[in-house]
Amino acid sequence: MFTDFGSEGPYLGQMEAVLRINAPSEPVINLLSNAPVENVLSSAHLLAALSQNFPADTVFLTVVDPGVGGERQPIVLRADGRWFVGPDNGLLNSVALHADVVHWWIIEWRPEKLSCSFHGRDLFAPVAARISQKDYSGLSLWDGPDLSGWPADIASIIYIDHYGNALTGWRYNKELDGQIIHLNGQVIHQAETFCDVPEGEPFWYENSCGLVEIAVNKGRASELFNLKVGVGVRF
Amino acid sequence: MFTDFGSEGPYLGQMEAVLRINAPSEPVINLLSNAPVENVLSSAHLLAALSQNFPADTVFLTVVDPGVGGERQPIVLRADGRWFVGPDNGLLNSVALHADVVHWWIIEWRPEKLSCSFHGRDLFAPVAARISQKDYSGLSLWDGPDLSGWPADIASIIYIDHYGNALTGWRYNKELDGQIIHLNGQVIHQAETFCDVPEGEPFWYENSCGLVEIAVNKGRASELFNLKVGVGVRF
Amino acid sequence: MFTDFGSEGPYLGQMEAVLRINAPSEPVINLLSNAPVENVLSSAHLLAALSQNFPADTVFLTVVDPGVGGERQPIVLRADGRWFVGPDNGLLNSVALHADVVHWWIIEWRPEKLSCSFHGRDLFAPVAARISQKDYSGLSLWDGPDLSGWPADIASIIYIDHYGNALTGWRYNKELDGQIIHLNGQVIHQAETFCDVPEGEPFWYENSCGLVEIAVNKGRASELFNLKVGVGVRF
Repeated sequence: MFTDFGSEGPYLGQMEAVLRINAPSEPVINLLSNAPVENVLSSAHLLAALSQNFPADTVFLTVVDPGVGGERQPIVLRADGRWFVGPDNGLLNSVALHADVVHWWIIEWRPEKLSCSFHGRDLFAPVAARISQKDYSGLSLWDGPDLSGWPADIASIIYIDHYGNALTGWRYNKELDGQIIHLNGQVIHQAETFCDVPEGEPFWYENSCGLVEIAVNKGRASELFNLKVGVGVRF
Repeated sequence: MFTDFGSEGPYLGQMEAVLRINAPSEPVINLLSNAPVENVLSSAHLLAALSQNFPADTVFLTVVDPGVGGERQPIVLRADGRWFVGPDNGLLNSVALHADVVHWWIIEWRPEKLSCSFHGRDLFAPVAARISQKDYSGLSLWDGPDLSGWPADIASIIYIDHYGNALTGWRYNKELDGQIIHLNGQVIHQAETFCDVPEGEPFWYENSCGLVEIAVNKGRASELFNLKVGVGVRF
Repeated sequence: MFTDFGSEGPYLGQMEAVLRINAPSEPVINLLSNAPVENVLSSAHLLAALSQNFPADTVFLTVVDPGVGGERQPIVLRADGRWFVGPDNGLLNSVALHADVVHWWIIEWRPEKLSCSFHGRDLFAPVAARISQKDYSGLSLWDGPDLSGWPADIASIIYIDHYGNALTGWRYNKELDGQIIHLNGQVIHQAETFCDVPEGEPFWYENSCGLVEIAVNKGRASELFNLKVGVGVRF
């Protein structure tokens, strides 16, 4: 489950209940429950980074869905062997863009009772459960969205974690080595990890999901630089 | 599990451990962990709304228990086929009031070691686990609480969700259609769902668990109207 | 899982995924996800208190690891039949100090791909999963850390819970009965539990995991006394 639901509230548990009922033998993992609220672009890049190490046939139930109840379509993506179920609002675009083999489907199936505001529980979860059981009914093949304008990376903060570390939407590659990040008028150098810099010192590094991340050894980058999701970074 | 424990802290995990040990094959779901702290009335109405779609024989382990260690009794309710285990402080009253068939029991069983402050772990969880295994020992039939003064609905905010949406304790019915809500001096009109109103606009609607909810398209109702649990609403 | 990861973010779910893949039949419980951030001393005392009621052969995957990527060793502790996997930074010291029978190992095994900043996912979780499957490969016996300077108890706040209750690092014993706690210039008397004192009144008591805890009936001790982790208490 990859959502902007929060883990405290009732939405995650209600959705998990549907999964447990429809796919009792499958483990259910809360991968992320505080994706930036209703922020599809940042969430899409987070999802691409966080999903890449999961084994084939993992089913990602992805719900960041500000347009629920509106025109957007419910869709399924298979990307390099992993499944993604969610809304057609761009949330799955980054996964698709970075995958070698992709297939798309529109979900034609509708439940008997579909609430206006909680398709995660009523529509996406039952489909995700069925796909985990190798039941692909109710889907029709689709060409997929137009990805021509979708950015491969985005040069901004896409997530602030529990430690105040700031994840950017820029995937690390070796060409970045030695470069400097400019952020809110500050200059930030590269390091390999936290203990390579003095306490209180900021740095950027390749984080554990392959993104460029801005952090402070024994400190909170989000507070030091007054960061929030959407702030731009420049190499 | 329906609690006011918070999902970060040690209480939910300790209680889940007891369930896993005593009923290893049963799935455990965190339905709600941020019920309004020690607010039994609001929690009771939330529980009634959130539990209604679960299948028969689901066991709800419900702990919002400010009087733990005092005079209140530990009880079990069976309501329309679902089980509820918790304190006799009103928490189960709304479920019972809206059910067709109810039975009540007092929990006579006591564990060898009963802490003063955590009956959720020591008493309620073992009983919930046993009921899930169809072991009903240690219970004695009871007439149940006096529900004559318990409100079927309450015209106030009972929960603020992760998005800042405000759930009321008023169950939606068709007679409310077209009515206006007065709230903190403001007037709020009905809509079907978020994308039916302009961005930033407040509205009320029947939410995904059947309650009247106040929300703002792409905004936070709780901040726009300075809402918190307990604020009254008027149709 | 006992961590300072937070339950909302991506770290807990990524680590759980590794456990599910490597030990599919074992239940995974989030025992604590908001251990005081990078505060090893407080976390160590919390872990000792919270782990003591779990059955033999429980595996605790413990990650409060500010020195990740540095010199500290990955280790395994067996203490009174329970297993603990984590960093050699003191996090397991309190558990060991209060146990009757302890054995220590260094983890020699390294994964193919080891990130600099997330050994919880890449190193500790795979080892914890293997231990739960009775596979003890990749470990070499070790004498253990020098515990001579490690405090059996600490007279300060080690955790503030969801209710604003303040847990100290002092284990309750009968000799404390009747004593008074001095805290931020205030005097706090003992009570058995919440409903033994008037509403709004502070008290201290033996909490459900055996620690001295400061609480307020129907109130928040953390706000009344302006408490945070690290504040000292004196009997």
